Amino acid sequence: MAGMPASKTNPGHYFEDFSLGQELRHATPRTVTTGDVALYTALTGSRFALQSSDAFARVCGLQQAPLDDALVFHVVFGKTVPDVSLNAVANLGYAECRWVTPVFPGDTLSTSSTVIGLKQNSNGKTGVVYVRSTGVNQHGDTVLDYVRWVMVRKHDLDAPAPEPVVPDLADHVDPADLAVPEGLRFAGYDTVASGAPHLWEHYAAGERIDHVDGMTIEEAEHMMATRLYQNTAKVHFNQFTEGQGRFGRRLMYGGHVISLARALSFNGLANAVCMAAINGGRHVAPMFAGDTLFAWSEVLETAELPGRDDVGALRLRTIAAKDQPCAGFPGRGDDGSYDESVVLDLDYWALMPREAAQASLNP
Amino acid sequence: MAGMPASKTNPGHYFEDFSLGQELRHATPRTVTTGDVALYTALTGSRFALQSSDAFARVCGLQQAPLDDALVFHVVFGKTVPDVSLNAVANLGYAECRWVTPVFPGDTLSTSSTVIGLKQNSNGKTGVVYVRSTGVNQHGDTVLDYVRWVMVRKHDLDAPAPEPVVPDLADHVDPADLAVPEGLRFAGYDTVASGAPHLWEHYAAGERIDHVDGMTIEEAEHMMATRLYQNTAKVHFNQFTEGQGRFGRRLMYGGHVISLARALSFNGLANAVCMAAINGGRHVAPMFAGDTLFAWSEVLETAELPGRDDVGALRLRTIAAKDQPCAGFPGRGDDGSYDESVVLDLDYWALMPREAAQASLNP
Amino acid sequence: MAGMPASKTNPGHYFEDFSLGQELRHATPRTVTTGDVALYTALTGSRFALQSSDAFARVCGLQQAPLDDALVFHVVFGKTVPDVSLNAVANLGYAECRWVTPVFPGDTLSTSSTVIGLKQNSNGKTGVVYVRSTGVNQHGDTVLDYVRWVMVRKHDLDAPAPEPVVPDLADHVDPADLAVPEGLRFAGYDTVASGAPHLWEHYAAGERIDHVDGMTIEEAEHMMATRLYQNTAKVHFNQFTEGQGRFGRRLMYGGHVISLARALSFNGLANAVCMAAINGGRHVAPMFAGDTLFAWSEVLETAELPGRDDVGALRLRTIAAKDQPCAGFPGRGDDGSYDESVVLDLDYWALMPREAAQASLNP
Repeated sequence: MAGMPASKTNPGHYFEDFSLGQELRHATPRTVTTGDVALYTALTGSRFALQSSDAFARVCGLQQAPLDDALVFHVVFGKTVPDVSLNAVANLGYAECRWVTPVFPGDTLSTSSTVIGLKQNSNGKTGVVYVRSTGVNQHGDTVLDYVRWVMVRKHDLDAPAPEPVVPDLADHVDPADLAVPEGLRFAGYDTVASGAPHLWEHYAAGERIDHVDGMTIEEAEHMMATRLYQNTAKVHFNQFTEGQGRFGRRLMYGGHVISLARALSFNGLANAVCMAAINGGRHVAPMFAGDTLFAWSEVLETAELPGRDDVGALRLRTIAAKDQPCAGFPGRGDDGSYDESVVLDLDYWALMPREAAQASLNP
Repeated sequence: MAGMPASKTNPGHYFEDFSLGQELRHATPRTVTTGDVALYTALTGSRFALQSSDAFARVCGLQQAPLDDALVFHVVFGKTVPDVSLNAVANLGYAECRWVTPVFPGDTLSTSSTVIGLKQNSNGKTGVVYVRSTGVNQHGDTVLDYVRWVMVRKHDLDAPAPEPVVPDLADHVDPADLAVPEGLRFAGYDTVASGAPHLWEHYAAGERIDHVDGMTIEEAEHMMATRLYQNTAKVHFNQFTEGQGRFGRRLMYGGHVISLARALSFNGLANAVCMAAINGGRHVAPMFAGDTLFAWSEVLETAELPGRDDVGALRLRTIAAKDQPCAGFPGRGDDGSYDESVVLDLDYWALMPREAAQASLNP
Repeated sequence: MAGMPASKTNPGHYFEDFSLGQELRHATPRTVTTGDVALYTALTGSRFALQSSDAFARVCGLQQAPLDDALVFHVVFGKTVPDVSLNAVANLGYAECRWVTPVFPGDTLSTSSTVIGLKQNSNGKTGVVYVRSTGVNQHGDTVLDYVRWVMVRKHDLDAPAPEPVVPDLADHVDPADLAVPEGLRFAGYDTVASGAPHLWEHYAAGERIDHVDGMTIEEAEHMMATRLYQNTAKVHFNQFTEGQGRFGRRLMYGGHVISLARALSFNGLANAVCMAAINGGRHVAPMFAGDTLFAWSEVLETAELPGRDDVGALRLRTIAAKDQPCAGFPGRGDDGSYDESVVLDLDYWALMPREAAQASLNP
């Protein structure tokens, strides 16, 4: 029993428990299944054809429909919570997030993280921890890789501050570094089945799209989603404690807001079939049960992909707002402050078939 | 980009956008799985043995448990919403609905529709559109075929009225046209496992059955069900907008009411293991979260099936009522008006094993 | 139609309908799937590695991840409700519950019961019925075996009281009778993946563990869980009727409280990977939607298992409380009465890897 912690329960890591270069192998390997896919559909209403239909995915060169990329993110992310953010005060940001290998039902996902930055705050009570987290499948292939940074409490306020190290993070993922899922080819892509005729060539930087629809969220829904991801962050589940806290409410997992905004974005971006990278993201404000989510997107950039004429990349900024339809594109004002309705500001790369993908069908 | 719509989002079709004979191939092919089956069980509590147990289904000649027929209906139906009823004012009716090929986990469903009738209303602002919709599996086999008609808004009020065409629809499906799933044979049917001893011979026209139990519905449940079916009708999801609307509430998808009534009907119709056809149906009143659903059924007709001594058909009228137990069989009064509790009046054919199905077990 | 009941609906059994030695084969065989597993995860947040990961389960000698033991219990139990407890006044207790054969996705479960005791109450209006229920898979292997007793109403108050027979039930299951799932071997057990370093040797009788976390439950969640188990007990679903009843509320299925307490117990008992037996259990008070559940456990006993150095058994008493964090270990006072927060008092055996299980990894 040497080296056993005094308590059997998980205290999480406090700021002083992290050290630069530290490797954290996270618990709870998870086999993802068609059951997870069905629940994800029921909880988000996602309709992207590649993830919805095995037959459609096979035409596109895959063995079957892959899991929704955001679902993969949440499962990989959830495993890091007990080690990285159980004592977090705030989830500060994401960067350099790339999906690498597609995930199929039956795959088993595990996650590990490396501490790549540490900076104690001047108040001496908290510090910022930067981790690079990697999700792998049962073959050891990387499925997802991302950096996030969180503000974590110190437990022992007398613990010395570490040498501050802030990693140099890319402003955005270079499109040349985006991974197209192995085998994916869009020859014969069917835009009637996919739900919209608009392909990569039809989008231009600066274009704004109101995704029109609104989705109200219930407590049961966001808690089921978050438990499905085995994410244990306490603020999502415990009304007894949260009722006495700052908001008096359970907070919705911010990742579920990303999923809902992405599902809403189908209306206008139906052919943005894969998320390839997250350049950055900010949970601007908390979202609660009873709120209705709306979203809009701006095309920030379009990029060709090396050696591919069947698929291109769109860099999208998706903003989600609560209780505010998005025809007016609520966002940041000239002073940099957000409209009070905004809950999410997400900058990501999506993959979209190009016109050449249809050539074989429409000679 | 020639021929691209001005907007990237789906405006749906308005009345003037439909033309007689028009073919609509709907988006979002969907692979249905055991995940969908589990969710359907969790959302409805359905207990029909043939759909609950692979072992039971194999004794009955099928490869495994087929999906619940109502679940198949909802998935097929959901695909038509963006093209047929996004701008609908009212869902007016169903007719000639037949299940043809059973659906198993792993099958991929797609839907297409043909416009078979059009009639502008005298107000010049709306019109009735009749479509025949067909769901097929990945082999192109028809799994479901039905007619529905909806009242749809005009967008351009100056658009000329089409020549009115109202299709000649059957009052009910002829029992000779009912499809028994290929391979299904009820020799060895186990009425202990199925939950009731009452077989086809034990029911008689005119018989009324109170299904006794009541089921209260929550917002999270009907929204999860409706998203599972990838049905995008806005009134089910958006409290922000609906809160300002006629009811001040989100409306429950009427198809989910059918599923709940059907699940309740197990208590009294446990051996009505397949829905074979819907002759007609009417959503008499909207249903909201917090309402408790009850149901009762009347046997309208019993019919032998050509060449089959193991299975017969029952024509059933199932009426569902909210916040009203059904021992008193609430329905239509002498003046044709419904009891104010009634939300659904459904006329359908069910398949039920006959006494001969048990002969091999009870010689 | 000879011998057909007058009504087509299920009246359940009243006290006078039971007879000693009576065999009840229950309806609704059920194929369990990865869909059920995903829903169970979404509804409980369970994180035990053996049930979460096929890859982890294979290292432990199983073909794939087995279903959570409590999920198996609920599916087996649910089938008994229409025959045993539809007219029950109270669910009085459990004993001699043993899991025997592990259940995997694709297995089909059925349940039968034998009446092993009957005792009419002195009021002449109710009686206690003892049944031994056995769940089997599609091969006829016993997966679960348990005794429960319930208080059931008489319908015909003039029916004669049966000779009272109260079965002699074990105070607890002898550890020598615990079944270790066939093939399960913990050589190479990975305590990083499982989430905690604490193995069987690290627990001692008398030790108390506060599981720390709290979980608030919604109506949609407990109803979805209970329908997933095809448990038809009316009090869980029908607000119209329950609103007029004793509590004015729907009651949560007590088994779901067991599942939630077990899921919470991961924090402190992460390596208690299997439930092997329930020695006894009491639903001390009802639980309602909106309540937040907390739990703590006491180690009652540790036991070696015959011929096994890789796995041992822990006898645990888990107490769950509502709206009461468990750092103070709320339980029974000196006068035997429970703290008013307590909803569940469960005495069970769990299997846990021993230090030898890691020897091959850490020579």
